[in-house]
Amino acid sequence: MDLGIISIGKLKNGPLQELQNDYKKRILKLGKNIGINDLQIKEGLISKKKSVDERKEEEGQFFEKNLNRESYNIILDETGEQINSLNISDLISNKLQDSRKIDFFIGGPDGFEKELLNQSDKLISFGKVTWPHMLLRVMLLEQLYRGITTVSYTHLRAHETRGNLVCPLLLEKK
Amino acid sequence: MDLGIISIGKLKNGPLQELQNDYKKRILKLGKNIGINDLQIKEGLISKKKSVDERKEEEGQFFEKNLNRESYNIILDETGEQINSLNISDLISNKLQDSRKIDFFIGGPDGFEKELLNQSDKLISFGKVTWPHMLLRVMLLEQLYRGITTVSYTHLRAHETRGNLVCPLLLEKK
Repeated sequence: MDLGIISIGKLKNGPLQELQNDYKKRILKLGKNIGINDLQIKEGLISKKKSVDERKEEEGQFFEKNLNRESYNIILDETGEQINSLNISDLISNKLQDSRKIDFFIGGPDGFEKELLNQSDKLISFGKVTWPHMLLRVMLLEQLYRGITTVSYTHLRAHETRGNLVCPLLLEKK
Repeated sequence: MDLGIISIGKLKNGPLQELQNDYKKRILKLGKNIGINDLQIKEGLISKKKSVDERKEEEGQFFEKNLNRESYNIILDETGEQINSLNISDLISNKLQDSRKIDFFIGGPDGFEKELLNQSDKLISFGKVTWPHMLLRVMLLEQLYRGITTVSYTHLRAHETRGNLVCPLLLEKK
Protein backbone atom coordinates (compact mmCIF):
# COMPACT_ATOMS: atom_id res chain seq x y z
CA MET A 1 0.00 0.00 0.00
CA ASP A 2 1.06 3.60 -0.62
CA LEU A 3 0.37 6.72 1.40
CA GLY A 4 -0.25 10.16 -0.06
CA ILE A 5 -0.61 13.67 1.29
CA ILE A 6 -2.29 16.19 -1.01
CA SER A 7 -1.82 19.61 0.47
CA ILE A 8 -2.12 23.30 -0.36
CA GLY A 9 1.05 25.33 0.22
CA LYS A 10 4.63 24.75 -0.83
CA LEU A 11 7.07 24.16 2.03
CA LYS A 12 10.22 26.20 1.58
CA ASN A 13 13.61 25.32 2.99
CA GLY A 14 13.37 25.63 6.75
CA PRO A 15 12.55 23.76 9.95
CA LEU A 16 9.10 22.52 8.85
CA GLN A 17 10.56 21.04 5.67
CA GLU A 18 13.36 19.43 7.70
CA LEU A 19 10.75 17.85 9.98
CA GLN A 20 8.76 16.68 6.94
CA ASN A 21 11.83 15.07 5.34
CA ASP A 22 12.82 13.40 8.61
CA TYR A 23 9.34 11.95 9.21
CA LYS A 24 9.11 10.78 5.59
CA LYS A 25 12.40 8.92 5.91
CA ARG A 26 11.32 7.29 9.18
CA ILE A 27 7.87 6.36 7.85
CA LEU A 28 9.34 4.67 4.76
CA LYS A 29 12.00 2.82 6.75
CA LEU A 30 9.50 1.46 9.26
CA GLY A 31 6.60 1.16 6.79
CA LYS A 32 8.34 -1.41 4.61
CA ASN A 33 8.00 -3.92 7.51
CA ILE A 34 4.24 -3.87 7.01
CA GLY A 35 3.95 -3.35 3.23
CA ILE A 36 3.93 0.45 2.94
CA ASN A 37 5.97 1.14 -0.17
CA ASP A 38 5.75 4.84 -0.80
CA LEU A 39 4.70 8.18 0.66
CA GLN A 40 3.99 10.87 -1.92
CA ILE A 41 3.51 14.49 -0.93
CA LYS A 42 1.82 16.68 -3.53
CA GLU A 43 1.77 20.44 -3.02
CA GLY A 44 -0.63 22.91 -4.67
CA LEU A 45 -0.37 26.67 -4.81
CA ILE A 46 -2.28 28.86 -2.35
CA SER A 47 -4.84 30.76 -4.41
CA LYS A 48 -4.46 34.54 -4.54
CA LYS A 49 -8.00 35.26 -5.73
CA LYS A 50 -9.92 37.96 -3.91
CA SER A 51 -12.90 36.14 -2.40
CA VAL A 52 -13.01 33.05 -0.21
CA ASP A 53 -15.28 31.26 -2.70
CA GLU A 54 -12.93 31.96 -5.61
CA ARG A 55 -9.92 30.79 -3.60
CA LYS A 56 -11.67 27.59 -2.53
CA GLU A 57 -12.67 26.96 -6.14
CA GLU A 58 -9.18 27.45 -7.52
CA GLU A 59 -7.61 25.27 -4.83
CA GLY A 60 -10.44 22.80 -5.36
CA GLN A 61 -9.24 22.23 -8.93
CA PHE A 62 -5.91 21.01 -7.57
CA PHE A 63 -7.67 18.65 -5.19
CA GLU A 64 -10.03 17.35 -7.91
CA LYS A 65 -7.06 16.69 -10.19
CA ASN A 66 -5.40 14.63 -7.47
CA LEU A 67 -8.49 12.80 -6.24
CA ASN A 68 -7.89 9.17 -7.03
CA ARG A 69 -11.07 7.04 -6.99
CA GLU A 70 -9.07 3.93 -6.17
CA SER A 71 -7.59 5.46 -3.04
CA TYR A 72 -9.19 5.63 0.37
CA ASN A 73 -9.55 9.41 0.61
CA ILE A 74 -9.40 11.11 3.98
CA ILE A 75 -9.92 14.84 4.40
CA LEU A 76 -8.65 16.75 7.44
CA ASP A 77 -11.45 19.13 8.25
CA GLU A 78 -12.77 20.77 11.40
CA THR A 79 -16.18 19.15 10.80
CA GLY A 80 -14.59 15.70 10.75
CA GLU A 81 -14.65 12.94 13.36
CA GLN A 82 -12.25 13.74 16.15
CA ILE A 83 -9.77 10.91 16.19
CA ASN A 84 -7.15 9.69 18.62
CA SER A 85 -3.76 8.09 17.93
CA LEU A 86 -5.19 4.56 18.22
CA ASN A 87 -7.77 5.32 15.49
CA ILE A 88 -4.93 6.14 13.09
CA SER A 89 -3.06 2.89 13.70
CA ASP A 90 -6.35 0.95 13.38
CA LEU A 91 -7.06 2.74 10.11
CA ILE A 92 -3.64 1.89 8.68
CA SER A 93 -3.96 -1.67 9.89
CA ASN A 94 -7.45 -2.13 8.36
CA LYS A 95 -6.62 -0.55 5.03
CA LEU A 96 -3.32 -2.39 4.54
CA GLN A 97 -5.12 -5.37 3.02
CA ASP A 98 -7.90 -3.84 0.97
CA SER A 99 -6.66 -0.45 -0.26
CA ARG A 100 -4.03 0.41 -2.82
CA LYS A 101 -3.47 3.77 -1.23
CA ILE A 102 -4.64 6.10 1.53
CA ASP A 103 -4.65 9.76 0.48
CA PHE A 104 -4.87 12.53 3.08
CA PHE A 105 -6.09 15.98 1.99
CA ILE A 106 -5.03 19.15 3.82
CA GLY A 107 -6.69 22.38 2.71
CA GLY A 108 -5.42 25.93 2.51
CA PRO A 109 -6.25 28.73 4.96
CA ASP A 110 -9.89 28.80 3.75
CA GLY A 111 -10.55 25.06 3.93
CA PHE A 112 -12.43 22.95 1.38
CA GLU A 113 -15.41 23.26 -0.93
CA LYS A 114 -18.42 21.25 0.24
CA GLU A 115 -18.45 19.25 -2.98
CA LEU A 116 -15.01 17.86 -2.26
CA LEU A 117 -15.91 17.02 1.34
CA ASN A 118 -18.86 14.98 0.01
CA GLN A 119 -16.56 12.98 -2.23
CA SER A 120 -14.25 11.80 0.54
CA ASP A 121 -14.41 8.41 2.26
CA LYS A 122 -13.77 9.90 5.69
CA LEU A 123 -13.45 13.30 7.37
CA ILE A 124 -11.16 13.52 10.36
CA SER A 125 -10.15 16.27 12.77
CA PHE A 126 -7.31 16.75 15.28
CA GLY A 127 -9.49 18.67 17.75
CA LYS A 128 -11.14 22.09 18.00
CA VAL A 129 -8.00 24.15 17.60
CA THR A 130 -7.23 25.83 14.26
CA TRP A 131 -3.73 24.91 13.03
CA PRO A 132 -1.77 26.54 10.23
CA HIS A 133 -1.88 24.13 7.29
CA MET A 134 1.92 23.73 7.11
CA LEU A 135 2.22 22.74 10.77
CA LEU A 136 -0.84 20.50 10.36
CA ARG A 137 1.06 18.56 7.69
CA VAL A 138 3.89 17.85 10.13
CA MET A 139 1.33 16.88 12.79
CA LEU A 140 -0.25 14.39 10.36
CA LEU A 141 3.17 12.92 9.52
CA GLU A 142 3.85 12.50 13.25
CA GLN A 143 0.56 10.61 13.68
CA LEU A 144 1.25 8.43 10.64
CA TYR A 145 4.69 7.60 12.01
CA ARG A 146 3.21 6.85 15.42
CA GLY A 147 0.47 4.68 13.86
CA ILE A 148 2.94 2.74 11.69
CA THR A 149 5.17 2.15 14.73
CA THR A 150 2.24 0.51 16.54
CA VAL A 151 1.12 -1.59 13.54
CA SER A 152 4.69 -2.56 12.73
CA TYR A 153 5.38 -3.71 16.28
CA THR A 154 2.16 -5.77 16.41
CA HIS A 155 2.96 -7.26 13.00
CA LEU A 156 6.52 -8.23 13.92
CA ARG A 157 5.41 -9.66 17.26
CA ALA A 158 2.94 -11.89 15.41
CA HIS A 159 5.84 -13.29 13.39
CA GLU A 160 8.24 -13.50 16.32
CA THR A 161 10.20 -16.67 16.82
CA ARG A 162 12.53 -17.77 19.59
CA GLY A 163 15.53 -17.01 17.41
CA ASN A 164 14.12 -13.72 16.19
CA LEU A 165 12.82 -11.71 19.12
CA VAL A 166 11.33 -8.27 18.64
CA CYS A 167 12.23 -5.28 20.76
CA PRO A 168 10.12 -2.11 20.30
CA LEU A 169 13.14 0.10 20.84
CA LEU A 170 14.93 -1.41 17.84
CA LEU A 171 12.15 -0.17 15.58
CA GLU A 172 12.93 3.41 16.59
CA LYS A 173 16.53 3.38 15.40
CA LYS A 174 17.22 5.37 12.28
CA MET B 1 2.40 40.27 32.16
CA ASP B 2 4.91 37.49 31.48
CA LEU B 3 4.40 34.10 29.88
CA GLY B 4 6.19 30.93 30.93
CA ILE B 5 6.45 27.39 29.61
CA ILE B 6 7.67 24.76 32.06
CA SER B 7 8.40 21.62 30.17
CA ILE B 8 10.11 18.27 30.48
CA GLY B 9 12.74 17.55 27.83
CA LYS B 10 15.63 19.60 26.52
CA LEU B 11 15.36 20.67 22.89
CA LYS B 12 18.59 20.07 21.03
CA ASN B 13 19.75 22.03 18.01
CA GLY B 14 17.42 21.12 15.18
CA PRO B 15 14.19 22.06 13.44
CA LEU B 16 12.00 22.02 16.57
CA GLN B 17 14.39 24.36 18.36
CA GLU B 18 14.45 26.64 15.30
CA LEU B 19 10.65 26.76 15.34
CA GLN B 20 10.67 27.47 19.09
CA ASN B 21 13.15 30.35 18.67
CA ASP B 22 11.21 31.79 15.76
CA TYR B 23 7.88 31.70 17.62
CA LYS B 24 9.48 33.17 20.74
CA LYS B 25 10.85 36.10 18.74
CA ARG B 26 7.47 36.73 17.06
CA ILE B 27 5.54 36.43 20.34
CA LEU B 28 7.80 38.97 22.10
CA LYS B 29 7.71 41.41 19.18
CA LEU B 30 3.93 41.34 18.93
CA GLY B 31 3.31 40.85 22.66
CA LYS B 32 4.86 44.15 23.66
CA ASN B 33 1.90 45.91 21.96
CA ILE B 34 -0.40 44.49 24.62
CA GLY B 35 1.89 44.41 27.66
CA ILE B 36 3.51 40.99 27.39
CA ASN B 37 7.10 41.57 28.48
CA ASP B 38 8.74 38.18 28.59
CA LEU B 39 8.41 34.53 27.63
CA GLN B 40 10.52 32.16 29.71
CA ILE B 41 10.99 28.54 28.71
CA LYS B 42 12.25 26.25 31.47
CA GLU B 43 13.33 22.73 30.59
CA GLY B 44 13.61 19.78 32.97
CA LEU B 45 15.35 16.46 32.42
CA ILE B 46 13.34 13.40 31.35
CA SER B 47 13.57 10.96 34.25
CA LYS B 48 15.36 7.69 33.60
CA LYS B 49 13.91 5.82 36.57
CA LYS B 50 12.51 2.37 35.96
CA SER B 51 8.83 2.67 36.86
CA VAL B 52 6.22 5.14 35.63
CA ASP B 53 5.49 6.23 39.22
CA GLU B 54 9.16 6.90 39.95
CA ARG B 55 9.57 8.85 36.71
CA LYS B 56 6.47 10.95 37.39
CA GLU B 57 7.73 11.63 40.90
CA GLU B 58 11.19 12.72 39.78
CA GLU B 59 9.80 14.95 37.03
CA GLY B 60 7.20 16.20 39.52
CA GLN B 61 10.00 17.67 41.66
CA PHE B 62 11.01 19.88 38.73
CA PHE B 63 7.42 21.03 38.28
CA GLU B 64 6.96 21.69 42.02
CA LYS B 65 10.16 23.72 42.07
CA ASN B 66 8.84 25.89 39.24
CA LEU B 67 5.25 26.19 40.42
CA ASN B 68 4.73 29.86 41.19
CA ARG B 69 1.68 30.56 43.38
CA GLU B 70 1.38 34.05 41.95
CA SER B 71 1.09 32.80 38.38
CA TYR B 72 -2.04 31.56 36.67
CA ASN B 73 -0.97 27.93 36.19
CA ILE B 74 -2.26 25.97 33.22
CA ILE B 75 -1.43 22.30 32.70
CA LEU B 76 -1.67 20.64 29.28
CA ASP B 77 -3.20 17.27 30.03
CA GLU B 78 -5.39 14.82 28.14
CA THR B 79 -8.02 15.06 30.90
CA GLY B 80 -8.23 18.84 30.46
CA GLU B 81 -10.91 20.96 28.83
CA GLN B 82 -10.64 20.79 25.07
CA ILE B 83 -10.02 24.32 23.93
CA ASN B 84 -10.15 26.10 20.60
CA SER B 85 -8.00 28.96 19.30
CA LEU B 86 -10.51 31.59 20.43
CA ASN B 87 -10.35 30.31 24.02
CA ILE B 88 -6.60 30.98 24.07
CA SER B 89 -6.93 34.58 22.90
CA ASP B 90 -9.77 35.12 25.42
CA LEU B 91 -7.59 33.67 28.15
CA ILE B 92 -4.67 35.97 27.32
CA SER B 93 -7.00 38.93 27.06
CA ASN B 94 -8.66 38.20 30.42
CA LYS B 95 -5.45 37.54 32.31
CA LEU B 96 -3.57 40.58 30.95
CA GLN B 97 -5.06 42.79 33.66
CA ASP B 98 -5.14 40.62 36.74
CA SER B 99 -2.23 38.18 36.49
CA ARG B 100 1.49 38.76 36.74
CA LYS B 101 2.20 35.67 34.70
CA ILE B 102 0.61 32.72 32.93
CA ASP B 103 2.65 29.52 33.25
CA PHE B 104 1.98 26.56 30.98
CA PHE B 105 3.13 23.09 32.09
CA ILE B 106 3.96 20.35 29.58
CA GLY B 107 4.72 16.91 31.02
CA GLY B 108 7.09 14.19 29.89
CA PRO B 109 6.10 10.99 28.09
CA ASP B 110 4.34 9.68 31.23
CA GLY B 111 2.35 12.82 32.03
CA PHE B 112 1.77 14.36 35.45
CA GLU B 113 1.24 13.23 39.01
CA LYS B 114 -2.32 13.73 40.23
CA GLU B 115 -1.16 15.99 43.05
CA LEU B 116 0.24 18.50 40.59
CA LEU B 117 -2.90 18.41 38.44
CA ASN B 118 -4.92 19.33 41.54
CA GLN B 119 -2.73 22.36 42.18
CA SER B 120 -3.26 23.94 38.76
CA ASP B 121 -5.73 26.73 37.99
CA LYS B 122 -6.81 25.15 34.71
CA LEU B 123 -6.30 21.92 32.75
CA ILE B 124 -6.44 22.21 28.98
CA SER B 125 -6.14 19.75 26.10
CA PHE B 126 -5.51 20.07 22.35
CA GLY B 127 -7.80 17.13 21.48
CA LYS B 128 -7.78 13.35 21.82
CA VAL B 129 -4.56 12.73 19.94
CA THR B 130 -1.35 11.94 21.82
CA TRP B 131 1.46 14.32 20.80
CA PRO B 132 5.16 13.97 21.56
CA HIS B 133 5.95 16.55 24.25
CA MET B 134 8.55 18.39 22.14
CA LEU B 135 6.14 18.89 19.24
CA LEU B 136 3.42 19.83 21.73
CA ARG B 137 5.60 22.70 22.93
CA VAL B 138 5.81 24.10 19.40
CA MET B 139 2.04 23.62 19.01
CA LEU B 140 1.47 25.63 22.22
CA LEU B 141 3.79 28.40 20.98
CA GLU B 142 1.83 28.53 17.72
CA GLN B 143 -1.45 28.92 19.65
CA LEU B 144 0.05 31.61 21.92
CA TYR B 145 1.27 33.50 18.86
CA ARG B 146 -2.12 33.15 17.20
CA GLY B 147 -3.90 34.29 20.37
CA ILE B 148 -1.61 37.30 20.83
CA THR B 149 -2.14 38.29 17.18
CA THR B 150 -5.90 38.40 17.78
CA VAL B 151 -5.67 40.30 21.09
CA SER B 152 -3.07 42.69 19.69
CA TYR B 153 -5.17 43.50 16.64
CA THR B 154 -8.29 44.13 18.75
CA HIS B 155 -6.24 46.27 21.15
CA LEU B 156 -4.70 48.41 18.41
CA ARG B 157 -8.04 48.83 16.66
CA ALA B 158 -9.48 50.17 19.91
CA HIS B 159 -6.79 52.87 19.91
CA GLU B 160 -7.02 53.57 16.19
CA THR B 161 -7.20 57.19 15.04
CA ARG B 162 -7.64 58.69 11.59
CA GLY B 163 -3.95 59.47 11.43
CA ASN B 164 -2.94 56.08 12.77
CA LEU B 165 -4.84 53.34 10.99
CA VAL B 166 -4.24 49.70 11.84
CA CYS B 167 -3.71 47.04 9.23
CA PRO B 168 -3.71 43.40 10.45
CA LEU B 169 -1.08 42.48 7.85
CA LEU B 170 1.42 44.92 9.37
CA LEU B 171 1.31 42.96 12.61
CA GLU B 172 2.63 39.90 10.80
CA LYS B 173 5.85 41.50 9.64
CA LYS B 174 8.99 40.30 11.38
